[in-house]
Amino acid sequence: MLPDKPTIAILGAGAVGGYYGGRLAQHGHDVHFLVRSDYAALARRGWTIRSCQGDFSIPPHKLRVYNNVSLMPAADLIIITFKTTSNDQYEPLIRPLLKQSTLILTLQNGLGNEERLAELFGAHRVLGGLAFTCINRIEPAVIHHLGQGWIRVGQFVEGQTDLAQAVVNLLTRCRIQADVLPSLRYGRWEKLLWNIPFSGLGGALDLTTDQLIGNRWGLHLVTALMQEVLAAARAHGADIPAGMIDEMIRRTSTMGAYRSSMQIDRQEGRPMEVEAILGEPLRASQRTGVPTPFLAALYPMAVAVNLGKMRKQNP
Amino acid sequence: MLPDKPTIAILGAGAVGGYYGGRLAQHGHDVHFLVRSDYAALARRGWTIRSCQGDFSIPPHKLRVYNNVSLMPAADLIIITFKTTSNDQYEPLIRPLLKQSTLILTLQNGLGNEERLAELFGAHRVLGGLAFTCINRIEPAVIHHLGQGWIRVGQFVEGQTDLAQAVVNLLTRCRIQADVLPSLRYGRWEKLLWNIPFSGLGGALDLTTDQLIGNRWGLHLVTALMQEVLAAARAHGADIPAGMIDEMIRRTSTMGAYRSSMQIDRQEGRPMEVEAILGEPLRASQRTGVPTPFLAALYPMAVAVNLGKMRKQNP
Repeated sequence: MLPDKPTIAILGAGAVGGYYGGRLAQHGHDVHFLVRSDYAALARRGWTIRSCQGDFSIPPHKLRVYNNVSLMPAADLIIITFKTTSNDQYEPLIRPLLKQSTLILTLQNGLGNEERLAELFGAHRVLGGLAFTCINRIEPAVIHHLGQGWIRVGQFVEGQTDLAQAVVNLLTRCRIQADVLPSLRYGRWEKLLWNIPFSGLGGALDLTTDQLIGNRWGLHLVTALMQEVLAAARAHGADIPAGMIDEMIRRTSTMGAYRSSMQIDRQEGRPMEVEAILGEPLRASQRTGVPTPFLAALYPMAVAVNLGKMRKQNP
Repeated sequence: MLPDKPTIAILGAGAVGGYYGGRLAQHGHDVHFLVRSDYAALARRGWTIRSCQGDFSIPPHKLRVYNNVSLMPAADLIIITFKTTSNDQYEPLIRPLLKQSTLILTLQNGLGNEERLAELFGAHRVLGGLAFTCINRIEPAVIHHLGQGWIRVGQFVEGQTDLAQAVVNLLTRCRIQADVLPSLRYGRWEKLLWNIPFSGLGGALDLTTDQLIGNRWGLHLVTALMQEVLAAARAHGADIPAGMIDEMIRRTSTMGAYRSSMQIDRQEGRPMEVEAILGEPLRASQRTGVPTPFLAALYPMAVAVNLGKMRKQNP
């Protein structure tokens, strides 16, 4: 269980890590940020966070920021916010921070993150969080929190919620809206129901959400993919109601020309999170024998886009 | 059969129509060009053709150019070079030019063009040509012929070659390299074997040929698609040898960062030839019961890209 004044490590301080870590630090917690490219800017300027729920900053003399994990203290709670494309860093970045009782919360996208963390560090300490929020890093050390901020926290061990409740209590005391997910698996698959068509097709085809659903064929594609994901989710025990498909499309149609994270990554020349958002769900579907022909075609296309575009940037 | 001095109509004078029509006019033939956007430039300046086989021009006083089909004379040979996305114009543009003996040669991409022409105007007069060439329209009325120029001509009625031979004789007398295709159907499917993966994936994913085959997954995708097309071709009586897949990939790997016509169309905001290159082959495969799961996913994706991107341009 978490101590009253936990030592918290934020691994990867992009928009999500900066915002949530910043909120925890703002409320007096002992927060340690491990960052890469923004180290110099953070050490010099601290965090500047412009939030629709009130601006705040963490000045440099109060900010504990590191670019080397070996300098960090062991943590009671590790929050992972780097992209899943760096998941090969789990072992070297997390192992040095572990104590017997350390909890690990991943706020990353997609499927397979908690599974991998559980394999490496033990299932009992692994939690997953779904962040429903709109946060951008507009320049090094400056974050813009535009809307929402809700986090749903679940435990990797299905049926247990005590640790998730402890983390939720910590978050809500820092004015971060949070609640406990009764089933992390359900939450993950429900989020994939949106992410696979909109982030997957958006990234592979370079289309915004309105370009995808604003025409009959795009809508047909999105719906077909969602039906595949729904069937796969159910085969994995996440009994998402069929009406959720229409509901998500309806909600998405109010979002305008929304660029998914994968489309933004593609356009910015960064690696897309293809494995977490498409590859792991495809392999999970295949293990249950659920046919997912559109996902099976979309996955290698997105991989090819990733590799094709990256080869050019990193020759 | 073609008269010695046939009246020739070129419908759609982009790069292909301008180059081949220009060659025919250069050699003294009675060539009539039906054009749309370039009408004013052509009437004022005539054709300027820079060719690796010798530059030439057709001065305005020698050029018969029209923007209204009703002003054109009936033709002995109609050569169709407009994009397949305008195939709904077959009836209004061709019917007024027909005589009893008129031959119709389509140099368009993909599948289904000859079938549609045969339905409308009779199978006996329909020919198809595959142009293996590199020609660009660099500005209105100016064409750059960079390489090759070979045309293979086949008759829609399989087994007949007399009309194809007559057209080939006409072309070769004008120093256009040409030969008779013993089977137009074989020729079309062989070209699709390249076009479906490279133009289809290139257009849907916005990837150049080297981005597609320069990585393991892209190569896997291209190969899987080619295997589907090969099976469909064989079911349609085009017995393409399996070794052709490796051979085409090998040849493509020497082409560098080649942008397919569909990728160029996408990038320029023009409609991609999705139906001729993907839709017709998919429907043809489905009629024979050959499973083509990758093509079945690629087709709606390309349609969605077309519609998604077009909706923005033509609101």
